[in-house]
Amino acid sequence: MIDIPSFADVVVARERIAGYVHRTPVHSSSTFNALTQAEVFFKCENLQRVGAFKARGACNAVFALDEEGLARGVATHSSGNHGAAVALAAMIRQCPAYVVMPSNSSEVKRAAVRHYQANVVDCEPGMRAREDALAKVVEDTGAHIVHPYDDSMVIAGQGTAALELMEEVEKLDVILVPVGGGGLLGGTLLAAAGFGAGTRVIGVEPRQADDARQSIHSGTRVVMDSPDTVADGLRASLGVRNFALIHGHVEDIVCVEESEIIAAMRFVWERMKLVIEPSSAVPVAALLHHRLELQGQRVGVILSGGNVDLDSMPW
Amino acid sequence: MIDIPSFADVVVARERIAGYVHRTPVHSSSTFNALTQAEVFFKCENLQRVGAFKARGACNAVFALDEEGLARGVATHSSGNHGAAVALAAMIRQCPAYVVMPSNSSEVKRAAVRHYQANVVDCEPGMRAREDALAKVVEDTGAHIVHPYDDSMVIAGQGTAALELMEEVEKLDVILVPVGGGGLLGGTLLAAAGFGAGTRVIGVEPRQADDARQSIHSGTRVVMDSPDTVADGLRASLGVRNFALIHGHVEDIVCVEESEIIAAMRFVWERMKLVIEPSSAVPVAALLHHRLELQGQRVGVILSGGNVDLDSMPW
Repeated sequence: MIDIPSFADVVVARERIAGYVHRTPVHSSSTFNALTQAEVFFKCENLQRVGAFKARGACNAVFALDEEGLARGVATHSSGNHGAAVALAAMIRQCPAYVVMPSNSSEVKRAAVRHYQANVVDCEPGMRAREDALAKVVEDTGAHIVHPYDDSMVIAGQGTAALELMEEVEKLDVILVPVGGGGLLGGTLLAAAGFGAGTRVIGVEPRQADDARQSIHSGTRVVMDSPDTVADGLRASLGVRNFALIHGHVEDIVCVEESEIIAAMRFVWERMKLVIEPSSAVPVAALLHHRLELQGQRVGVILSGGNVDLDSMPW
Repeated sequence: MIDIPSFADVVVARERIAGYVHRTPVHSSSTFNALTQAEVFFKCENLQRVGAFKARGACNAVFALDEEGLARGVATHSSGNHGAAVALAAMIRQCPAYVVMPSNSSEVKRAAVRHYQANVVDCEPGMRAREDALAKVVEDTGAHIVHPYDDSMVIAGQGTAALELMEEVEKLDVILVPVGGGGLLGGTLLAAAGFGAGTRVIGVEPRQADDARQSIHSGTRVVMDSPDTVADGLRASLGVRNFALIHGHVEDIVCVEESEIIAAMRFVWERMKLVIEPSSAVPVAALLHHRLELQGQRVGVILSGGNVDLDSMPW
């Protein structure tokens, strides 16, 4: 029996992390609306602390620990944003943090983790190597694992972004969410179901990392090892809790091509003047490239993060 | 005798352009505040229509024309943002627009002017060539000239950005403004003096285009032809009306180096997730590189625009 979070956990999370994370603004673009024939509201989690929504889940998970747990510290594996988020949360609570990072993580993301005074532990790319390295850290330190997505506290924390968005923008027909391990999607589903405005939720992922679509369509959790996509935040496969939350509840999972992700990212930089990372551009691409039939609808999009290496643009 | 705008003109401009330009948001960054030991509020005119504050002045000038003037149309010369702004304003009022652009204008800015259905007229770089080409357009068409900065309506319109900023952020000690031809600085001085909160105004310009500093310090308007700076929006020299408004009223004009502008631009992209153009980074650079003694003060910064060519980054 696994623990699965509920809407009540999202509401508690919001109280627990208030004052430590930003209530991020919502942007819109008349040009984007004209191109997509929809009314689109962008929740700017790229403007969140650590530059990504991950601050929400990590703060919720770390702040929920008792004194003994805090003394032993926290550990995680992450290609970047979640690592920085756990490091930030641990710094706020003044507890030790250990972050396992694959060798292909971007330098910007590694620097962020170090900035928050966490210990960076290197490993090879791939989920197996990450989990092995993390197990060793836990054996050595007794630290509490804050999993990047397969963790009830993390999922509940991520759901607070959608909760804020639905409070600010009335009568949203649908929210689009990028899908990696399913933390943000799981939390968003909880928030939408509990909020009670009838808002649907659709996940979007890179076709080259389409484990979630395969999982939902087949009814069995599919795991891909090290998929190749420019959306470096979405290389993980759905976790156990995430699959349980998503299967049967998400309206659909749609996919976009790499070139579409890059074009959408460029559009947001060039026209909306917002720095977003490729993962954020995935749901934007689904709209811009008409992968969804949402004409005339009020659409929320969670811009998940904005951490990029400015020395290596994808265009 | 030249016509010089007053605070009342700024207030009228605000009413005239309301509903056609955005009330842009104000952002802040705890990291930036820690680095500068000041409380800094960024007025995001990069999120303004056409991607720059120029929409304000151009709309004010074009909307103030009578029916006969509108029928003949409007003309201007611009390295980019003002041209797009006049084109937008003319498109809203459905009147012809002619925009003289130097051959070294960025492709992004030329495309924006064409997007708003204006006629682009090419000329050589340099103020003399721009003015000659504009005179010919006016001779041919009878169009009304909307000068990029040496125009009372334009100056009054640009002042509305600072007016909004002072209304939103109480008790600002000082506002920092980038200086090119002095439209934004002139308008900001009018707004600050009329608003009555005692807010001081400081101009910042690239040292390689420091005509305003020379002008203010010598008491005589200095004109530089085609200065070389990465801040392409600040290559113009102070206009006649602008010098009259600024001299004796601005607290100071300070200068920053090219490398400081680029570093500040990168900081805003990387840490604040906002796409700004080099001109916007000029006052940011003055703070980051400690060209001013503003510790402990509440500081407004107008991020003037966000139009950049993403294929040619300055770093």
